[in-house]
Amino acid sequence: MADKYQPKPEDKFTFGLWTVGNMGRDPFGEPVRERIAPDDIVRLLGEVGAYGVNFHDNDLVPINASTPQRNKIVKEFKAALKETGLKVPMATTNLFADPAFKDGAFTSNDPAVRAYALQKTIRAIELGVECGAGIYVFWGGREGTESDATKNPVEAIKWFREAINFLCEYVRDQKYDLKFALEPKPNEPRGDIFFPTVGSMLGFISTLQYPDMVGVNPEVAHEQMSGLNFMHAVAQAWDAGKLFHIDLNDQKYSRYDQDYRFGAETIKPAFYLVKFLEDVGYSGSRHFDAHAYRTEDAEGVKDFARGCMRSYLILKEKAAQFNKDKEIQALLKEITGGTEKWKWLGGGYSKEKAKRLLDEPFDREKLGARGLKYERLDQLTTELLLGVR
Amino acid sequence: MADKYQPKPEDKFTFGLWTVGNMGRDPFGEPVRERIAPDDIVRLLGEVGAYGVNFHDNDLVPINASTPQRNKIVKEFKAALKETGLKVPMATTNLFADPAFKDGAFTSNDPAVRAYALQKTIRAIELGVECGAGIYVFWGGREGTESDATKNPVEAIKWFREAINFLCEYVRDQKYDLKFALEPKPNEPRGDIFFPTVGSMLGFISTLQYPDMVGVNPEVAHEQMSGLNFMHAVAQAWDAGKLFHIDLNDQKYSRYDQDYRFGAETIKPAFYLVKFLEDVGYSGSRHFDAHAYRTEDAEGVKDFARGCMRSYLILKEKAAQFNKDKEIQALLKEITGGTEKWKWLGGGYSKEKAKRLLDEPFDREKLGARGLKYERLDQLTTELLLGVR
Amino acid sequence: MADKYQPKPEDKFTFGLWTVGNMGRDPFGEPVRERIAPDDIVRLLGEVGAYGVNFHDNDLVPINASTPQRNKIVKEFKAALKETGLKVPMATTNLFADPAFKDGAFTSNDPAVRAYALQKTIRAIELGVECGAGIYVFWGGREGTESDATKNPVEAIKWFREAINFLCEYVRDQKYDLKFALEPKPNEPRGDIFFPTVGSMLGFISTLQYPDMVGVNPEVAHEQMSGLNFMHAVAQAWDAGKLFHIDLNDQKYSRYDQDYRFGAETIKPAFYLVKFLEDVGYSGSRHFDAHAYRTEDAEGVKDFARGCMRSYLILKEKAAQFNKDKEIQALLKEITGGTEKWKWLGGGYSKEKAKRLLDEPFDREKLGARGLKYERLDQLTTELLLGVR
Amino acid sequence: MADKYQPKPEDKFTFGLWTVGNMGRDPFGEPVRERIAPDDIVRLLGEVGAYGVNFHDNDLVPINASTPQRNKIVKEFKAALKETGLKVPMATTNLFADPAFKDGAFTSNDPAVRAYALQKTIRAIELGVECGAGIYVFWGGREGTESDATKNPVEAIKWFREAINFLCEYVRDQKYDLKFALEPKPNEPRGDIFFPTVGSMLGFISTLQYPDMVGVNPEVAHEQMSGLNFMHAVAQAWDAGKLFHIDLNDQKYSRYDQDYRFGAETIKPAFYLVKFLEDVGYSGSRHFDAHAYRTEDAEGVKDFARGCMRSYLILKEKAAQFNKDKEIQALLKEITGGTEKWKWLGGGYSKEKAKRLLDEPFDREKLGARGLKYERLDQLTTELLLGVR
Repeated sequence: MADKYQPKPEDKFTFGLWTVGNMGRDPFGEPVRERIAPDDIVRLLGEVGAYGVNFHDNDLVPINASTPQRNKIVKEFKAALKETGLKVPMATTNLFADPAFKDGAFTSNDPAVRAYALQKTIRAIELGVECGAGIYVFWGGREGTESDATKNPVEAIKWFREAINFLCEYVRDQKYDLKFALEPKPNEPRGDIFFPTVGSMLGFISTLQYPDMVGVNPEVAHEQMSGLNFMHAVAQAWDAGKLFHIDLNDQKYSRYDQDYRFGAETIKPAFYLVKFLEDVGYSGSRHFDAHAYRTEDAEGVKDFARGCMRSYLILKEKAAQFNKDKEIQALLKEITGGTEKWKWLGGGYSKEKAKRLLDEPFDREKLGARGLKYERLDQLTTELLLGVR
Repeated sequence: MADKYQPKPEDKFTFGLWTVGNMGRDPFGEPVRERIAPDDIVRLLGEVGAYGVNFHDNDLVPINASTPQRNKIVKEFKAALKETGLKVPMATTNLFADPAFKDGAFTSNDPAVRAYALQKTIRAIELGVECGAGIYVFWGGREGTESDATKNPVEAIKWFREAINFLCEYVRDQKYDLKFALEPKPNEPRGDIFFPTVGSMLGFISTLQYPDMVGVNPEVAHEQMSGLNFMHAVAQAWDAGKLFHIDLNDQKYSRYDQDYRFGAETIKPAFYLVKFLEDVGYSGSRHFDAHAYRTEDAEGVKDFARGCMRSYLILKEKAAQFNKDKEIQALLKEITGGTEKWKWLGGGYSKEKAKRLLDEPFDREKLGARGLKYERLDQLTTELLLGVR
Repeated sequence: MADKYQPKPEDKFTFGLWTVGNMGRDPFGEPVRERIAPDDIVRLLGEVGAYGVNFHDNDLVPINASTPQRNKIVKEFKAALKETGLKVPMATTNLFADPAFKDGAFTSNDPAVRAYALQKTIRAIELGVECGAGIYVFWGGREGTESDATKNPVEAIKWFREAINFLCEYVRDQKYDLKFALEPKPNEPRGDIFFPTVGSMLGFISTLQYPDMVGVNPEVAHEQMSGLNFMHAVAQAWDAGKLFHIDLNDQKYSRYDQDYRFGAETIKPAFYLVKFLEDVGYSGSRHFDAHAYRTEDAEGVKDFARGCMRSYLILKEKAAQFNKDKEIQALLKEITGGTEKWKWLGGGYSKEKAKRLLDEPFDREKLGARGLKYERLDQLTTELLLGVR
Repeated sequence: MADKYQPKPEDKFTFGLWTVGNMGRDPFGEPVRERIAPDDIVRLLGEVGAYGVNFHDNDLVPINASTPQRNKIVKEFKAALKETGLKVPMATTNLFADPAFKDGAFTSNDPAVRAYALQKTIRAIELGVECGAGIYVFWGGREGTESDATKNPVEAIKWFREAINFLCEYVRDQKYDLKFALEPKPNEPRGDIFFPTVGSMLGFISTLQYPDMVGVNPEVAHEQMSGLNFMHAVAQAWDAGKLFHIDLNDQKYSRYDQDYRFGAETIKPAFYLVKFLEDVGYSGSRHFDAHAYRTEDAEGVKDFARGCMRSYLILKEKAAQFNKDKEIQALLKEITGGTEKWKWLGGGYSKEKAKRLLDEPFDREKLGARGLKYERLDQLTTELLLGVR
């Protein structure tokens, strides 16, 4: 069994430096684990079988590092990448930890902070590109408010757009092969964060100067914090051609940000998500943005990382089984059948179709009387998941 | 005081037939109030001072009415409109009550149901246009799932888009002066509903054939059900030029759909919303999509309707006071100041700006040390709301 | 496999008349299924393998039935019980559907309503006892408020206590062998309901005249509506000797009352619950308080009922497997070990123990450094659930 | 106006050292404010007009302080108390920050940790008593789980009870005049915390050895995190004689722990709470367990503290106004009237009352037809709150 669920590079499993490197500090508690140097995190990830490693600028290079310090760190990091064969598919900017960003970065009321955020991001893009990143993520953790007396949201949206437009132009100007992925979150650490859901980001992207360069980075926990169906959000992003990256983890609905191991909490939604990604042929990173429980030591961190990947692979196997299950497939066929009769209505509007449609007699009661067998289908799926089919 | 908060036509206060006509049935209880005929609802709304009345097709004309019955009802309704001077700014389709729509309308797995939903909507558009509606709302109450084994979300999104595109073309073909407004809701009555938030709808609109014809109809309760900041959602819609209509009501966060009287529950968010709408000069309907508590009789329904409008007008007065309050305005000016120095960075990207920005020395610690006085500003706002300023 | 998960009487699976009899009406939709007569529901439950059937007074006897009608219905119902061998372990009162109870029953502001609720409950107790019920449930669906201006909560608590005390005395007076089980719910259909959680009911019981007669009836969905861990609530009830009955179903956290098939949504919490009930030896009914999706016809209702019982039995089998899994049990033993050394501290306070404890040197850093292997344990549990162990 | 809402000692406003001393660290950000020494916090609280100051043992004395260091700190703290006249009504133990408590304190799976937690609490009780505390609070921030595979909840409940029983005996043995107040929280920092609501704690207290010594310390934010009505929880605690202390703050429902300034978010619930406390004559501390936004500097912290107290006093004034408002009081009288007729039913059960009740004819339809005027009452309350009555 170990072999079967052993991660391979082609699975595209990635972790952030900040995930396996998480020291277990929380709002009510001190760190429980030692800091691990970035190059050692790379080795740890190599050991557990990951494909790649992602980072915020300051995960790799401390915010107050001198240029020689920076260069030394980057050199050691690259050596570890070479040694292990790991890639850096994605990079991002830390625009939330420093007090300078306490009222936001691109949407701070202070124009100097907005300018500093832009500068910091450009430098972080350079660092990401230098390490090979093809996707650049924007998570605006501080872009919000505690009190709506304090900030004009239309101005904030405008500032955010100007920043993204500026950075798109910068990347084009530098001829970098880099795409942007915007990551929404509804709240925490701010009372409310702007663009709180995947949908909000999709809406925002359509108002940008270079919408083609920009997609989304949905995160399981961030949608589930709002009690939303994550897979539906991912489907909308996919439909719009905007699923550039994905953050996998888990948590209970309508809660603080728990960042659990993928598959640890909401097994069924995790299954539908994996099935979706595999069915549509999503080819990007499967990035685990989570961390080990605070009860764990260094060994527990490896258990955590291995668990994320194993659960994905188990669920992927279940998805294939679902697609081959004769009873399930027969039910699905029956449920979605009868399309032949209505083929004429597809392919866009015409006066004739409208007329024909208006003339069509429908037997409303018959349409309503049909049993759809969704209880059976869902129960079969549950039993497949539980391994008793 | 009565005079001051007496609604006037220019306030654009509207109610749905289904709101003041709500009989108080709920999942656990029988109706508590008698049915009121549509023309009598119009008179009731005239009495309390509303500007207009909106409806679902079957609020006005029962789903099984014959043509003569339909014509009689519409005639009486129009007579009541004339008698009272009320307008019909908005109409919509009931695609959720009938068993035929139990698995959705435009996203039903059954192609016959999808076709029937399209036909029913065209007829309802005719009815709305006949009564003078300029906005047509789509609330897809059944467009969702209880189990994600049962429906392919990418297909569902495609079906929904095809339906809206078809209907846009129909409206253009008929040369109706009609815009569409999509209304999101996260769940209830379905386990999860597609396009759950205002943001999702904005994202979806950008994938349509005629995006200019289509905007959103945000509802307070529907965003608050997901624990989201409603005013932020409205601001994003406004920024995108998509705030075509709005549904005002109230409820506690992360709950079932409570549909309370506007201003009944979340006073501060309601204030920021009213202030936003008035500050930006939103000129559409202020539609109250709510109903009286189930404890109320016919008199209580009027209390409910009057209360919605009074609370709006009181909060509008508070918004004007906020804009004139010297201490508050001085704080706001201080908070958002310092823009002169950074003017050069605005107006779009240039190589020179990027260079100058990268050369800029920032005093990060100083940026972080500044106190922003948001506690004071929020407390002043609270006291203004409580009427002690 | 069919045999293995075939329900048997000793599994104590019960359903309410209102569950499989649910017609699929919801706040936004009309019924989708025909009414089934109570005796036919009994036969349906017999067919699918249930042990018993429970009811509200008005599930069996309509609120406006004449005495002869009542007697005829009860006779037919009893005949069906005899025919099928089904039991009636529990009965309850409908104190929520009729408009009379729109402001509550035992906590209505109207003393006449409070008196009527008491009378109705006594009659319903008679009906329940006549049918053999040993547990009488109180779900105060309307005992709450929409606005806290309207009701004094301390009075409401007092009224509720007086009603329960009165009914306890009535039952003792009649020498019925009947226990009461109080069922909490946080909200819906009222804005907020008094005694919203299992804990609140446990607290309330300790203030009653006959606390020994009164326990709780926890329901999965009702705690999950508040985002609470249901198994923890059940454990507290069990610890207090108050787990008299249980309502099994499922739903997403922090949502409207979804009443899904048991095991349909939160698989892991459902597993821990079943494991808990089986481990402690809970011997009461496993009552399914849920209903089929609105997409289902009469066949789908049977699928729903069968699914509830199958999922319970599958999870029960998993619980046994967990208890036998050597790796899991070794981890548990390691985690909870070391108790020998601290035995002296147990068994209650003494001056000597306090002194010895205060003199004890603790190596705080060592205590904090230990890794607890919870990631591994949880991952093993997940894999056991998924059937790959 | 400043005078009117100026706090006085008899208002019993208290703050924790950890509240105004909060440095603004959060899960995603570094501290934004300097540490303030305990004696300087006392002076700050004296300056803003507080009555008292509360603390966790390690707010005052660092966990690794030597005895001389401890004595020096306590001496300086007491000097500041004397200088300012502030009292220490309450103290508590920090059983959550240190890694030793990562799996809980009294409910840790490790018996050595449980013993250490007991020792630490006894020492903290000594410190509290030495500073004059009459209430000792228990907030079990780490008493919970992330995965229910890891801990037996019945054992955990038993361990928690043994700890509280032991400590009750210790306090009695020492003849301290000290009561315990248990503070529930549903989650954060643990995935789920045991005894998540005020009700759970009330239920738990009834299973203790010395229930009279133990009450609750409800916190606004902690109930609202579960979407529960805080005032209802407080009313139940009051009814049970268990409201020993209260933590005032604010936050949005079903969210992470926001700990906002009292009155900052949910104005109406805050009003009902203040009205309740004043109406019943609660005489304990009004403790503000909150902290300034992370956007604030030292001045903003004072704004925060002053705002908490001002909002309480404004709402207290509103409560008095509500009690004097003739229209409101007339509505309340009408709503709750008619009790004379039913006086005979009160005062406990008797055979005769039961008979008379069963013979009573009720006009169910009339009971249901009555309009209760709650829309009007709630609107009047809203307008009173907004200062336009």
